[in-house]
Amino acid sequence: MKYPPSLIALIRELSRLPGIGPKSAQRLAFYLFEQPREDIERLAGVLLEAKRDLHTCPICFNITDADVCDVCADPARAQNLICVVEEPGDVIAIEKSGEYNGLYHVLHGVISPMNGVGPDKLHLKPLLPRLQDGMEVILATGTTVEGEATAMYLQRLIEPLGVVVSRIAYGLPVGGALEYADEVTLGRALSGRQRVTK
Amino acid sequence: MKYPPSLIALIRELSRLPGIGPKSAQRLAFYLFEQPREDIERLAGVLLEAKRDLHTCPICFNITDADVCDVCADPARAQNLICVVEEPGDVIAIEKSGEYNGLYHVLHGVISPMNGVGPDKLHLKPLLPRLQDGMEVILATGTTVEGEATAMYLQRLIEPLGVVVSRIAYGLPVGGALEYADEVTLGRALSGRQRVTK
Repeated sequence: MKYPPSLIALIRELSRLPGIGPKSAQRLAFYLFEQPREDIERLAGVLLEAKRDLHTCPICFNITDADVCDVCADPARAQNLICVVEEPGDVIAIEKSGEYNGLYHVLHGVISPMNGVGPDKLHLKPLLPRLQDGMEVILATGTTVEGEATAMYLQRLIEPLGVVVSRIAYGLPVGGALEYADEVTLGRALSGRQRVTK
Repeated sequence: MKYPPSLIALIRELSRLPGIGPKSAQRLAFYLFEQPREDIERLAGVLLEAKRDLHTCPICFNITDADVCDVCADPARAQNLICVVEEPGDVIAIEKSGEYNGLYHVLHGVISPMNGVGPDKLHLKPLLPRLQDGMEVILATGTTVEGEATAMYLQRLIEPLGVVVSRIAYGLPVGGALEYADEVTLGRALSGRQRVTK
């Protein structure tokens, strides 16, 4: 039995997406086959539209459809705080927390020599001209090996410029039981303990 | 911070796909954002092309881009064997096994009263005019509760028509250790044992 070429092409394109293996791609293709034509046209449409409208903000490299992203354009945000994150998705995650009212800088990756990603491949240099005396830079890259290495690299790069550099806190996730926390996290949570009495 | 509408639309459409939750949809959207324009255009293209070219075979309801599917159109396939499966993906799985040379009939679902799917919602009736004396129908629906119920329903419907009805074998998956098999499967594997000496 030969499979229809357009079915094979669809499965091949879907299996290129991250986290979607050949079996999932096949399942997705059959699912899409069962959907009404309008739904498929809408999906294809939003794909093309997103690619046409979206680009990175020239200041912070967050995703935007405007000249400058919403955060950079908002004078009500604290202008002396820059939070450095790995990916645009991290901005959304932090915005959802509602705990932050400063600016961002999106690296679009982490330093990872194993994958051939050096500092030059990240949007790292454009951060430097943004820094001014009295500013605080929060390093909010992940707590993975690569995230830590990137944070350390940034710290060494930025500290001489006379800005305050901080790192997001390590500790227990909220709702987490102590016995399920790994020992490294637990150790960091202890050493990073904060006084609750004054 | 407001998110660009085309980003929101893309995330919303992606999260409608089966097995893709809101977080995966967000990750996928950012991944797609990073890809070159040609890749996105190709993905959108194959989606529309697949929807335009593909339809179900009028005889067996397998997916095809021709008038009649490859299997139904092939006179070299055993014409007295019909294998009934749930989904088009099952046809691919059986073809890959290389153990079958008969015809198919794709139900496009299983009987599932819980989900409001009765026999009328499946491509079940068009199977009956295909059946002739001396034929064998292999019930190859899944071994889930719904798959079993569908197989039983079909058996009762077809048996009076004078055809041989069989069910794919239950047993241990190849490469499986006995101690990891569940007791029901093990029981079925024992009762379905086959002589190896003549």
